[in-house]
Amino acid sequence: MMGSESIRSVAVVGCGTVGASWAALFLAGGYDVVATDPAPEAERKLRGFIDRARPQLATLGLNGRGSLTFVDNLEAAVSTADFVQENAPENEAFKRALLARIDQAARPDAIVAISTSALLRSRIVADCEHPERHIVAHPFNPPHLLPLVEIVGEDDAVIARACAFYRSLRRKPVVLKKEVPGHIANRLSSALYREAVYLVEQGIASVADIDAAISEGPGLRWSIMGPHMTYHLGGGEGGIAHYLEHLGPSQERRWASLGEPRLTEDVKGAIVSGVEAEAGGRSIADLEAQRDHLLVEILRLKNKASS
Amino acid sequence: MMGSESIRSVAVVGCGTVGASWAALFLAGGYDVVATDPAPEAERKLRGFIDRARPQLATLGLNGRGSLTFVDNLEAAVSTADFVQENAPENEAFKRALLARIDQAARPDAIVAISTSALLRSRIVADCEHPERHIVAHPFNPPHLLPLVEIVGEDDAVIARACAFYRSLRRKPVVLKKEVPGHIANRLSSALYREAVYLVEQGIASVADIDAAISEGPGLRWSIMGPHMTYHLGGGEGGIAHYLEHLGPSQERRWASLGEPRLTEDVKGAIVSGVEAEAGGRSIADLEAQRDHLLVEILRLKNKASS
Repeated sequence: MMGSESIRSVAVVGCGTVGASWAALFLAGGYDVVATDPAPEAERKLRGFIDRARPQLATLGLNGRGSLTFVDNLEAAVSTADFVQENAPENEAFKRALLARIDQAARPDAIVAISTSALLRSRIVADCEHPERHIVAHPFNPPHLLPLVEIVGEDDAVIARACAFYRSLRRKPVVLKKEVPGHIANRLSSALYREAVYLVEQGIASVADIDAAISEGPGLRWSIMGPHMTYHLGGGEGGIAHYLEHLGPSQERRWASLGEPRLTEDVKGAIVSGVEAEAGGRSIADLEAQRDHLLVEILRLKNKASS
Repeated sequence: MMGSESIRSVAVVGCGTVGASWAALFLAGGYDVVATDPAPEAERKLRGFIDRARPQLATLGLNGRGSLTFVDNLEAAVSTADFVQENAPENEAFKRALLARIDQAARPDAIVAISTSALLRSRIVADCEHPERHIVAHPFNPPHLLPLVEIVGEDDAVIARACAFYRSLRRKPVVLKKEVPGHIANRLSSALYREAVYLVEQGIASVADIDAAISEGPGLRWSIMGPHMTYHLGGGEGGIAHYLEHLGPSQERRWASLGEPRLTEDVKGAIVSGVEAEAGGRSIADLEAQRDHLLVEILRLKNKASS
C-alpha cells in the first residue's frame, strides 16, 4: 500500500467553480495538475481563477508551485495521474458514464475522487470495473479555502491514502461510515435552512434579521466548534451529559415545534426581496470578496490557535 | 420619548452566568450597575467574573468603567435604574411573579429587559401593570462576547430605546415581529441539532466528525453571513433567485429526508461518549477559554472589516 507521498500528479476533470478551486489548491500544495474541461474558454477561466486564488492560499501557508497542463482529451488527462478529482455537473447518468470512462483510462493504482454534493456514490460507480478505488470527496464552497472534505468509500486503504493526501493540503477529511443523501454538512445546512425559511414564511422577522441571528450569534461559535461540543459547553460543569439530562426534553419539545415550510412563489418572493434588502446594493462579487477575505483571516487565526 | 443617552444606570437582577456577563458588558460600556442575587457568594462570584471579562471587552474596544454596587434587596436594586436586565431562572411562574415585583418597584420610565431563551413574553408579563415597558432581550452565550440580542416587545418606542442602548454596547439587536418559542437563533440551532443527533442515531459518522463537518465547513461561513445570504452566494451570478428556482426543489427533497430522532438512553450515551472522545481530556474550562480567545479575535476581525 502506498502512502500519500506516492501521489505527485493530480488530474482535475471539470474546471467549473469547484474544479478550478481544487486545481488551485493542488498546485499550491506543490502537486502537478493536468486539467480538462470541454467548455469553451475553460483553460483561460481556470488560469484566471488560479491566479486570483494563489495569494489567498499563500496567506494560509500553501506556497507550492506545481505545474499546470491543460488538455482537451479526458483519457489523456487521467492516464498518468496518481489521483483524479472529478467535478462534472450533478447529473447521475452523466456522472455514472464519466466515472466508467475515467475508470477505464486511469492507472490501476490511481484513486478517483468524486466532488458530488447530492448523488449517492453507490449509484454513480455502478458501471466501474474497479469501484473500490472511487471515493466521494465532497468539498465545501469555496473549496480552496474551507478545510472540510466529506469522504465516502468502501476500501479502508483507499480512504486512508486519500485522507493523507487531503491532510497534506491542510484539509480536514471527515469519513462517513455509510452513505446518505447530502452527506453530513449539507444535511445539517438544509435542516437549519428549513427553519430559516419557516421563519420567513411565518413573518417572524426580516430575512436580514434571521441571517444576523446566525452570523452575530451561534454562527460565530460554529466557526470554532460543532453543535455537540457547543451543547457540551452549554451544560455547565456537567457538560453534555448534564445538558441532555436536563435540557434534552426541552430540545425534543422544540423539535416538535419546528416548521415544515414549502417554497411557494410567495415564500420565494419574500426571500428574494429580503436578501436584496440585506445585500443593500453590494454585488455578489463584492459579497464573495468580503467573505473570502474574512474566511482567510479566520482560518489563519484557527491555524495559529491549533499549532 | 427619551433616547438611549438617557440611560445611565442599569439594574442587573440575577447574577448567574448570563447576569454576570451582562453586568460585565454594561460596566465596560460605561454604565453604572446595581446588581442583586439571593444566592450565597453571588457578589464575590460576580466580581470575579467581571475581572476576568474586562480584558476581553477592552480588546473589543469596550473600555468603560462604570461603578458596580451590589445590594441584597430586589426593590432597592431596581428602584433607581433607567434600565433593568432580568436574568432569573427559566421558570414561568417564578419569572412571572418576579417581573410583577420589578414592575411595581421600577421607575415608570424604566425599561425592563428579560433574558429568557425559552419562555414566551406574553405569558410572563401577564401580572405586570405596565407590560408595554417589558421586552424580551435574549443574549447568546457568552453574552458579553456574542453581539446578538433577540428582542420581543409590544411598544415600538420602548423597542427603539432598547435597541439604541444595546447598539451603544456594540450589540446587534434583532427585533421579532411576533413572539415564537425559542425566538430565532435557538430555533435554528435546534433544527440543526436535531439532524446532528439523527446522524449519531443512524451511525453515519462519529460525534467529532459531525462537529468537524460544521466547524471546518459551513460554520466558518455562518460566522460571516447567515443562511439566506449563504445561498445567495451559492446561486452564482443569479443569486438567491436563481438558487431557489434551480435548487429549491432539491432543498425540499432533502427536507423530506431529514431525520426525527429521539433522545433515547442509547442515543444520549453515544453522544456523551462521542463528545468525551472529541474533548480528548480537555476540561470544559479549557474548551471555553480556547473558544472565547478565538471569539474575541474573530469579533475583532469582523469589527475591522465593517468599520
